[in-house]
Amino acid sequence: MPTIQYTTVSESGLRRFVTEVFLSKGFSEEHAILSADVLLLADLRGIDSHGVARLSGYLRLIDAGRINPTPKFSIERRKKTIANLNADGSIGLISAPFAMDLAIEMSAEYGSGWMGIKHSNHFGIAAYHAMKALDNKMIGFSMTNASPLVTTANGSERMLGTNPICIAVPAGKEPAFVLDMATSAAANGKLEIAERTDKPIPNGWILGKDGRMDTKPDGLKRGGMLLPLGSDNEHGIHKGYGLGAWVDIFSGVLTGANYGPWVPPFVSFLQPLPNLPGQGLGHFVGCWEVDGFREYEDFCANMDQWIQRFKATIPLNPSQPVIIPGTPEREEHVRRLESGIPLVEAVMKDLEGLAQNTGVSFDL
Amino acid sequence: MPTIQYTTVSESGLRRFVTEVFLSKGFSEEHAILSADVLLLADLRGIDSHGVARLSGYLRLIDAGRINPTPKFSIERRKKTIANLNADGSIGLISAPFAMDLAIEMSAEYGSGWMGIKHSNHFGIAAYHAMKALDNKMIGFSMTNASPLVTTANGSERMLGTNPICIAVPAGKEPAFVLDMATSAAANGKLEIAERTDKPIPNGWILGKDGRMDTKPDGLKRGGMLLPLGSDNEHGIHKGYGLGAWVDIFSGVLTGANYGPWVPPFVSFLQPLPNLPGQGLGHFVGCWEVDGFREYEDFCANMDQWIQRFKATIPLNPSQPVIIPGTPEREEHVRRLESGIPLVEAVMKDLEGLAQNTGVSFDL
Repeated sequence: MPTIQYTTVSESGLRRFVTEVFLSKGFSEEHAILSADVLLLADLRGIDSHGVARLSGYLRLIDAGRINPTPKFSIERRKKTIANLNADGSIGLISAPFAMDLAIEMSAEYGSGWMGIKHSNHFGIAAYHAMKALDNKMIGFSMTNASPLVTTANGSERMLGTNPICIAVPAGKEPAFVLDMATSAAANGKLEIAERTDKPIPNGWILGKDGRMDTKPDGLKRGGMLLPLGSDNEHGIHKGYGLGAWVDIFSGVLTGANYGPWVPPFVSFLQPLPNLPGQGLGHFVGCWEVDGFREYEDFCANMDQWIQRFKATIPLNPSQPVIIPGTPEREEHVRRLESGIPLVEAVMKDLEGLAQNTGVSFDL
Repeated sequence: MPTIQYTTVSESGLRRFVTEVFLSKGFSEEHAILSADVLLLADLRGIDSHGVARLSGYLRLIDAGRINPTPKFSIERRKKTIANLNADGSIGLISAPFAMDLAIEMSAEYGSGWMGIKHSNHFGIAAYHAMKALDNKMIGFSMTNASPLVTTANGSERMLGTNPICIAVPAGKEPAFVLDMATSAAANGKLEIAERTDKPIPNGWILGKDGRMDTKPDGLKRGGMLLPLGSDNEHGIHKGYGLGAWVDIFSGVLTGANYGPWVPPFVSFLQPLPNLPGQGLGHFVGCWEVDGFREYEDFCANMDQWIQRFKATIPLNPSQPVIIPGTPEREEHVRRLESGIPLVEAVMKDLEGLAQNTGVSFDL
């Protein structure tokens, strides 16, 4: 088995580099700083598949004219607690935080606020957007559709993205509860790790092109498809399919973006299908103000008790205590801020290539 | 393997019987009719575990003083789009529709509306409440916590209920998309069916008391616990756990009801734990007005296309086409309205006993 080489870089150096790369592509300073912030949060939280590893993919989409580096946002529809944003081909890294800020404003006035976003592109980690609510004593919610790579229950065709759902709930003394999950059985990142180490993957992650379970880590690249959470009929695949479908309908159908197999693929070498029913891909974000339901302090006290009680669940294995969603990512964030962000060799090479192409100094 | 005996009864006869049983327990006419309507919808849709099979359980809770047959609802908190209902020990069959009606009113004025409900009891099928939004051109949402029977990822203790999530989305010519799913790998109903026929259950549904996978259908009754959707660490059990936790936090912590292991058990022979942190069990319901995001007609046209395209997914097995969530239940509803509701012998005997105890005529 090949060993993996890492280079550890500082958070500040990587942030400067990413910001300058976006600037070199015509992003405004505000947009470049924000885009770098979203990518860096993924790298800090240990969600390596959604951080700077994606940077070259974004740049190829900019070069291919599929991401607009200078978008003009327009609100196409507005009620008191709902609005729909036309992101004008923006990268989702900036359209989703923009929309979340509006949802927070609506929520401050009315108790809740909801934004559909269409004509957008990949929005990075869902948690970035939902977690914006936390400092406002609100619960944040975000979802997005994505490149069609996942099949349905009983299906043998790529119909859905890994379509994540994120819900971020504030607490008192305890850190926030942050659930950020793909609705497929395994996320892309796990396949990539298995592929790098050439390990077989478990039954129940992917189907081959022929519809049979495939345990080779490159099965998706060979034309296969990811399976929804639940993996098979006996274990509730219809539930994972239903959740992915919900995300697709909210992100695509409700907003006027594309949906299902028409969602434009993230990779620039695959062209979007002809006769698209909508514009770009779509996201859905929003929030609820806790204080509308209960005194915020009472809620926080009970939330702390909830977290402490669940951490104390009798574990199956005493060496593996029960985890509160969001905790490993928060702990990794603290660690990496201090000791740096480890990048695998392939990503380092990728970034070095970007430095050469854009003229940005590769001084991490 | 024992064969199962069914008696088929008419919808109208069963509805009259259930209504009169609730009336005999002191429910108002309005509440008795509504409670019967919620139970009957479950039986009509084929969700037999949540229909009249539960009636004797509700009555035992009324007799034990744990369900209040004459509740006085009070709104304890209210913002423009959020309110929290104290259901005064009500059966959830009436508190949840009441709250959903308020959420629909808020949504008509502001675009969205959200209700927490505390001090409540079991609310029947989640779909009843969410589907109320459909006729108002809204998307409905409902969730509830429930008797602690499900463990966590890496856990070996009953911490969560089967905590369902329901989302009901209107369409145009096509019928609505209705996802109504437990967040455990298998719902109770499936275990009951396996137990009746004494069939072994798949690995991944339950853990025995000792923390090992158990394939005996009565494993839950012998002190075991249900597993969250995903079933094991390789297949995303942390996601099913995260979803169940989300439902528990919204239904219990946000509303001021109980949560986690403190949720009062449905069965009257198990007493609630001492020192409860909240009141009763809790629900969370609400809705979004489609028109806030897009013209309703445009949305419906795209929703119809979504449904048609997903039904046309290449199937794994041509004899099992891909299903849109909610379709099997809607089709069963049509069938059972016409040809009657099949009740298993145990449920028939149960209802006959209730007739004797309450003096209600058993003329189905």
